[in-house]
Amino acid sequence: MRHYITFKDLTGAEYKVLFKRAKELKIARRQGHYLCHHLNGRSVGMVFNKNSTRTRVSFECAINELGGHPVVLSSGESQISRGETPSHTARVLSRYLAGLVIRTYEEKELTDLAEFSTVPIINGLTDEQHPCQVATDIFTLTETLSPEEKLEDQIVSWIGDGHNMANTWIEAACVLGFGLHLACPPGYEPDKNISSRAQSINKKIKFFKTPAEAVPGTRAVNTDVFSSMGQEKETAQRLIDFKDYKVTSELMKLALPEAIFMHCLPAHVGEEVTQDVIESPASLVFEEAENRLHVQKALLEFLIPKL
Amino acid sequence: MRHYITFKDLTGAEYKVLFKRAKELKIARRQGHYLCHHLNGRSVGMVFNKNSTRTRVSFECAINELGGHPVVLSSGESQISRGETPSHTARVLSRYLAGLVIRTYEEKELTDLAEFSTVPIINGLTDEQHPCQVATDIFTLTETLSPEEKLEDQIVSWIGDGHNMANTWIEAACVLGFGLHLACPPGYEPDKNISSRAQSINKKIKFFKTPAEAVPGTRAVNTDVFSSMGQEKETAQRLIDFKDYKVTSELMKLALPEAIFMHCLPAHVGEEVTQDVIESPASLVFEEAENRLHVQKALLEFLIPKL
Amino acid sequence: MRHYITFKDLTGAEYKVLFKRAKELKIARRQGHYLCHHLNGRSVGMVFNKNSTRTRVSFECAINELGGHPVVLSSGESQISRGETPSHTARVLSRYLAGLVIRTYEEKELTDLAEFSTVPIINGLTDEQHPCQVATDIFTLTETLSPEEKLEDQIVSWIGDGHNMANTWIEAACVLGFGLHLACPPGYEPDKNISSRAQSINKKIKFFKTPAEAVPGTRAVNTDVFSSMGQEKETAQRLIDFKDYKVTSELMKLALPEAIFMHCLPAHVGEEVTQDVIESPASLVFEEAENRLHVQKALLEFLIPKL
Repeated sequence: MRHYITFKDLTGAEYKVLFKRAKELKIARRQGHYLCHHLNGRSVGMVFNKNSTRTRVSFECAINELGGHPVVLSSGESQISRGETPSHTARVLSRYLAGLVIRTYEEKELTDLAEFSTVPIINGLTDEQHPCQVATDIFTLTETLSPEEKLEDQIVSWIGDGHNMANTWIEAACVLGFGLHLACPPGYEPDKNISSRAQSINKKIKFFKTPAEAVPGTRAVNTDVFSSMGQEKETAQRLIDFKDYKVTSELMKLALPEAIFMHCLPAHVGEEVTQDVIESPASLVFEEAENRLHVQKALLEFLIPKL
Repeated sequence: MRHYITFKDLTGAEYKVLFKRAKELKIARRQGHYLCHHLNGRSVGMVFNKNSTRTRVSFECAINELGGHPVVLSSGESQISRGETPSHTARVLSRYLAGLVIRTYEEKELTDLAEFSTVPIINGLTDEQHPCQVATDIFTLTETLSPEEKLEDQIVSWIGDGHNMANTWIEAACVLGFGLHLACPPGYEPDKNISSRAQSINKKIKFFKTPAEAVPGTRAVNTDVFSSMGQEKETAQRLIDFKDYKVTSELMKLALPEAIFMHCLPAHVGEEVTQDVIESPASLVFEEAENRLHVQKALLEFLIPKL
Repeated sequence: MRHYITFKDLTGAEYKVLFKRAKELKIARRQGHYLCHHLNGRSVGMVFNKNSTRTRVSFECAINELGGHPVVLSSGESQISRGETPSHTARVLSRYLAGLVIRTYEEKELTDLAEFSTVPIINGLTDEQHPCQVATDIFTLTETLSPEEKLEDQIVSWIGDGHNMANTWIEAACVLGFGLHLACPPGYEPDKNISSRAQSINKKIKFFKTPAEAVPGTRAVNTDVFSSMGQEKETAQRLIDFKDYKVTSELMKLALPEAIFMHCLPAHVGEEVTQDVIESPASLVFEEAENRLHVQKALLEFLIPKL
């Protein structure tokens, strides 16, 4: 039994299998084949200690389309917060559920549950990691590659906050071997442990002072909002600190001609990205959003064996 | 692809088809045939920015009975409120969902989403309109007509608040050609734009000063609570202003002998309607509630084509 | 049509049938047969006016595995609180739903709905009773009996709070004829009406001053947290009043050698039970949690006839 808490919980070879299956599921769904019977009546829990639209709806649809039933527990609605130990919660929920998706604050909440859970724990976003989103983004990038082009030969740029998304991109570059150029404002760098460990493995992970230095040669330009959920108080300061980290059409011109733009949404258009970039043909933000569904279906199939 | 935001989004001919199908679905369900496979594993979103029992449960059952999965997003639970543009929200949700039911405040929230959504947006109640309820009420009335009786020959009376329900009844009278007699307290008249436009099309839409003048000749007497959700502060004033707009058995006697009583519920018995009226054989309030389910199943089938 | 509001709503013979069916469903599920089609597309409502994990997840899975759809209405989310009479709420929901599970404060809320509901009302916990939990606990006990051992020859001990769980155990002892030894702190005794009525029927229901007097000869030792939901303000006082009502390994040694330990969870380990007891082979707390699902599936099948 496997969990999916950090990006490196799967190997490069396993991601290849996952993306192949996600593509099959995507094609089938577009042909009108929504339902399969993989979960066959089993239920998958979804705990949301932070609000969510994309994660919530994409996982809920994914579980349903696999023939399962999503049990959604919003923050404060369950007794999970009522002083029960993770050991008890994990052992109880493992009796009812075939898996558990959790969006919460600290990764430790997931690893504590995973220690006792006999069903897969899936990271639906923590303060440290967002593996389902980055796996989806990489799948989205691979969809734009020709059969001769290899993912490991590409370079991806990350512009902006060195938070959970940036941490996860760094781990992803380690696992999958592609290049990663990061430009984060001073004071907003990714987790030092993650980046120094990763750079010792993958020499193509590089930090730059400005977006204009990071973007050249990259096949995908990624960014996120200046202030994520829970950082609303820092918004004014961040608007100042991030002002040179906006993705503009000028910046996109520095990337490869075939470069795509990605953003995990929601976006604050005019802040971290201009309207012309996010609405350009190079922008795959809605394809990315859709791909959450396909990649998560493939992930659930992978983690939860068919009975 | 069609939306259902106001009553006039369907034609009179389409309502005839809709009611015929709702009747078939009602008969089938009463014979124990709950499930069909129209939605075939697809999910339909339900966004509730206002509390709901009837709309919530009837739509959730409707979607399930059509073989679909309802994704319920309560207010504050999703990121829809988190400053994302309707254009982004609509385009993201269109990737996951086969349709979207919304109960909210301003109709503009629905039309903004509808502009970008590639799946049907369905009005589950706004401050301006409640088309699913009025379509259901008219279906309920048609169930009581003999084969010789035509809907367009009937007159319906509306007693009380000139709010979303009254606005929608006015539009309905326009679309379907029946007579409508309204008696609303001074200062609580329906939207002037809606009523003047409607009266120019259907001369049988008439305003009266008192319920006793409005009700004679009508086949159905409708009312609603004096204070709807969000108007709790106005309750004391409204109790005074609406005191002559109560549906009593004396008032019902002024209507046609076969007249029915309708109320979209919840009711404040003793305020807008007396206990003897709402519990009388003429009262179809629980049939109305049930019919929400059948009409909404027919509506979902109509708006979301089978794959 | 039957409701399940108190333990005595079923006869002893009916519980035998229920437990037999629960066992069949448990075996089938462990062999991978999750889904059956008993509810066949019908929806069952779940109203939670108190938070819940076990009741919520176990009932939601149960309904889904029976081929039904759970409609979950959390507190404040529906209009049930909006001044509608139980008569109206019950008659409306009966049109949509095949049954209604309610977790709330006063039992009266359930009996008021039951008076008008044409579908089964199921008690998911009230301040007075918790029949689904006690039925599950007794099922769990019966699973440990050999074919020659009879439930009515066993004695069960209840240590601690004389609240809803204790009240329900007393009624259960009456219905099923087993012995019950209770040791509750002074001032925390069960409902006097329930216990005096019960003791007049079943002479084997006995009250003891101390756990050490209650436990000898018992086959199952049960307890619960010192402070239940809503009693957080009393916590400090209860910690004092309950200090001699902890289940320790010394106490367990006074019970029969084959005695099991039960707790409905969540537990505050170190308060009402020690870590060594709850983690001992005699502790069936997670089996109990799982059995909620099987017993409730059997209960739903029993109360809601197949169409």
